[in-house]
Amino acid sequence: MARVDKPTRVAIAGFGTVGRSVARLLQELAHPELRLTAILNRGIERKRVDWIDASVRWTESLDDALGDDVDVFVELIGGRSPAECWIRKALQAGKSVVTANKQVIAHRGPELLAEASRLGRHLRFEAAVAGGVPVVRAIEHGLAGDSLTRVTGILNGTCNYILSRMERDRLPFREALAEAQTLGLAEADPSQDIHGSDAQAKLAILTQIALAVHVAPDAIKTRGIDEIDAVDFVYARQMGCTIRQVAWAERTRDSGVVRAGVGPALVPLESPLARVRGSENIVTLQGRFGGETTFGGRGAGGEPTAVAVVSDLLAIAKDEVPLAARVSVAHAEVSPDFTSAYYVRFTVADRPGIIASLASAFARHSINIDAILQEPGFPIGRRPFVVSLEPSPVSSIERAMNDLSTFEFHGEAPVALPVLSAVSTGVLA
Amino acid sequence: MARVDKPTRVAIAGFGTVGRSVARLLQELAHPELRLTAILNRGIERKRVDWIDASVRWTESLDDALGDDVDVFVELIGGRSPAECWIRKALQAGKSVVTANKQVIAHRGPELLAEASRLGRHLRFEAAVAGGVPVVRAIEHGLAGDSLTRVTGILNGTCNYILSRMERDRLPFREALAEAQTLGLAEADPSQDIHGSDAQAKLAILTQIALAVHVAPDAIKTRGIDEIDAVDFVYARQMGCTIRQVAWAERTRDSGVVRAGVGPALVPLESPLARVRGSENIVTLQGRFGGETTFGGRGAGGEPTAVAVVSDLLAIAKDEVPLAARVSVAHAEVSPDFTSAYYVRFTVADRPGIIASLASAFARHSINIDAILQEPGFPIGRRPFVVSLEPSPVSSIERAMNDLSTFEFHGEAPVALPVLSAVSTGVLA
Repeated sequence: MARVDKPTRVAIAGFGTVGRSVARLLQELAHPELRLTAILNRGIERKRVDWIDASVRWTESLDDALGDDVDVFVELIGGRSPAECWIRKALQAGKSVVTANKQVIAHRGPELLAEASRLGRHLRFEAAVAGGVPVVRAIEHGLAGDSLTRVTGILNGTCNYILSRMERDRLPFREALAEAQTLGLAEADPSQDIHGSDAQAKLAILTQIALAVHVAPDAIKTRGIDEIDAVDFVYARQMGCTIRQVAWAERTRDSGVVRAGVGPALVPLESPLARVRGSENIVTLQGRFGGETTFGGRGAGGEPTAVAVVSDLLAIAKDEVPLAARVSVAHAEVSPDFTSAYYVRFTVADRPGIIASLASAFARHSINIDAILQEPGFPIGRRPFVVSLEPSPVSSIERAMNDLSTFEFHGEAPVALPVLSAVSTGVLA
Repeated sequence: MARVDKPTRVAIAGFGTVGRSVARLLQELAHPELRLTAILNRGIERKRVDWIDASVRWTESLDDALGDDVDVFVELIGGRSPAECWIRKALQAGKSVVTANKQVIAHRGPELLAEASRLGRHLRFEAAVAGGVPVVRAIEHGLAGDSLTRVTGILNGTCNYILSRMERDRLPFREALAEAQTLGLAEADPSQDIHGSDAQAKLAILTQIALAVHVAPDAIKTRGIDEIDAVDFVYARQMGCTIRQVAWAERTRDSGVVRAGVGPALVPLESPLARVRGSENIVTLQGRFGGETTFGGRGAGGEPTAVAVVSDLLAIAKDEVPLAARVSVAHAEVSPDFTSAYYVRFTVADRPGIIASLASAFARHSINIDAILQEPGFPIGRRPFVVSLEPSPVSSIERAMNDLSTFEFHGEAPVALPVLSAVSTGVLA
């Protein structure tokens, strides 16, 4: 039961949107346990603002930010390098570390936690996954008494914004993306978001915390949302679904293997995942005893992310049990194979016999067709229709899709999406 | 940074559904930090089961359950007396306490936390509110860095089950209640659930934790859901809403006053509250910096509640910073007055002039009518119609309803429900 007499002194590295919000929270909420001591940034003179206490040191030098008057180093520079190196240096200099860096934690989390533990220091990263949604804490504390078997999430606000806009106003993908860029919700180069590597890193972190295994982030297969067309929402709705970028990981019977993936999927309209609008995030955890628990909120933005950082700082100030003491992480392989119902949209130059060709290709891979959906009003030369497939191994689906790709009637490459089960809201089954 | 070498020894008082689930989790998950030592219950011989370790002591004596071989006393007997007395005795005997008792914590939480703090012991009660949803932890740890301004929740699974069934299949209230009783979701005497005193106690606890003030639970005004009719869901849907039993509390400018209430309300279909089906619970927190964060899951049942109890036990085994150290709770008064749009359903023996009478009564209290909705197909002698009102102080609404009650055309007493704003999902405004 640690009691705090003198404040924990904090240095912030990286004075961008999140760094400024952290500084503002520390000033406005004036937690007596915390005191901002130093701010580190390149070209620090440009960064100076007048609302920061005069006692705070502005510096461009890492060594200076790791001085004797600093207890906790807050890493907010992003990217793997030099952030990882700075975090190690801070720990070695006897500082505790708070970071919002998803890439560093996804790749090196277990190693850095072990290093922090060895040095008797804290390493915390609530802000690295789902921004303002305190899911690391919820797993660490509130669900500690359960055995978690699966984590499912919408972890990328940019993708969710784009898909929500396509859903609501039938915007084409490119227009929805351009709008997100105009609003500052998507980067000029949006590929990290669109192609899933942002969600992939966050999922790797959740897998460490929730399933207690470390998987190489790059081993989690990702698919982009850029193949989704506005018409897919029309067909999805006929199936009682919408489309979301879903990140999921689950235990298998073999403790050295998890199933995991990131990509667009059909989710039932009544599922919590379907109701996430705009740039919100959601995480759903399945526990062996507690059932499904869901956490939602703002996944990005300066202030929600800063709340996560400050909550971590308060945990360190109160000398809570360090995260490392809880997370014993073994390495696991990722199996991308799972069984799922599927939605396949074909866009064809229509002529008789197409359905027969498709049906026999699926039959060759022992895949049963559930239904065929076709909306009227499209030109004969470029007609989209959908085949829904009964639950099948994704490996069989991939082989069938490969066979189908050789047919000459395609106007566009077919789009195959898993369909989340309507029974459980969290399972791709 | 406490390290645990010998296990924390646990006594369970109350071997009902939750007590049995706690024992089962302790046995099956075999946390090395925890060991079940004693089980206390009246008529203990009836309660004995063969799957409990032979080393566990079965007893009917409180003194025995507070013996030297016990570190933590788990109170699961429910009700205020003798539970409160047992919790005090356990603390005084040097034990830490985990409880699922909403009534004791709602009424005596701050006092008992202070007592635990004085004695250097833990008192934890994650299971007392929203069962398996770790909302106490989320507030305590994950949102510690924010300043919370409002808490809104669906905290009673029985009411939510009944309202969901009325919504989905247009069941009358009595039938939905009878079904919940058959399924074991409602007690033979369901009045604690239906009339809101269960949610009232849970809201009082959330107010302690989230808004850091203690309000007398009985000062929170409650309204029952038994006045809701299946037709209300038809009209609510015309307004883009459904009906839920909502518990809410929010800060006012005066730190000694909160606004709070429990009762049926219209909630927009797109709000997280509307999507809570069956016996699930949800809690939404509004933070000054982090925006809205939502937590959902199973609010009752042996296993989810047991997960909350075991998570609390693990926190104590790890000697986490005690809850008392975080919750400094001042007393606050409850103001039931707030401004809200309203839904008022009248059931009348129809004749000309009714609308004119109603409209002038509302006008006298400066309340503007937004719309009048009337579904066809009801007998003239008992015709339900709805008047929706623009945002007005609830005190004005009550005075107007009081005036209206004297009109002779009522076939049934009118039903007035607040309408949650569609803009913010959490506010009654």
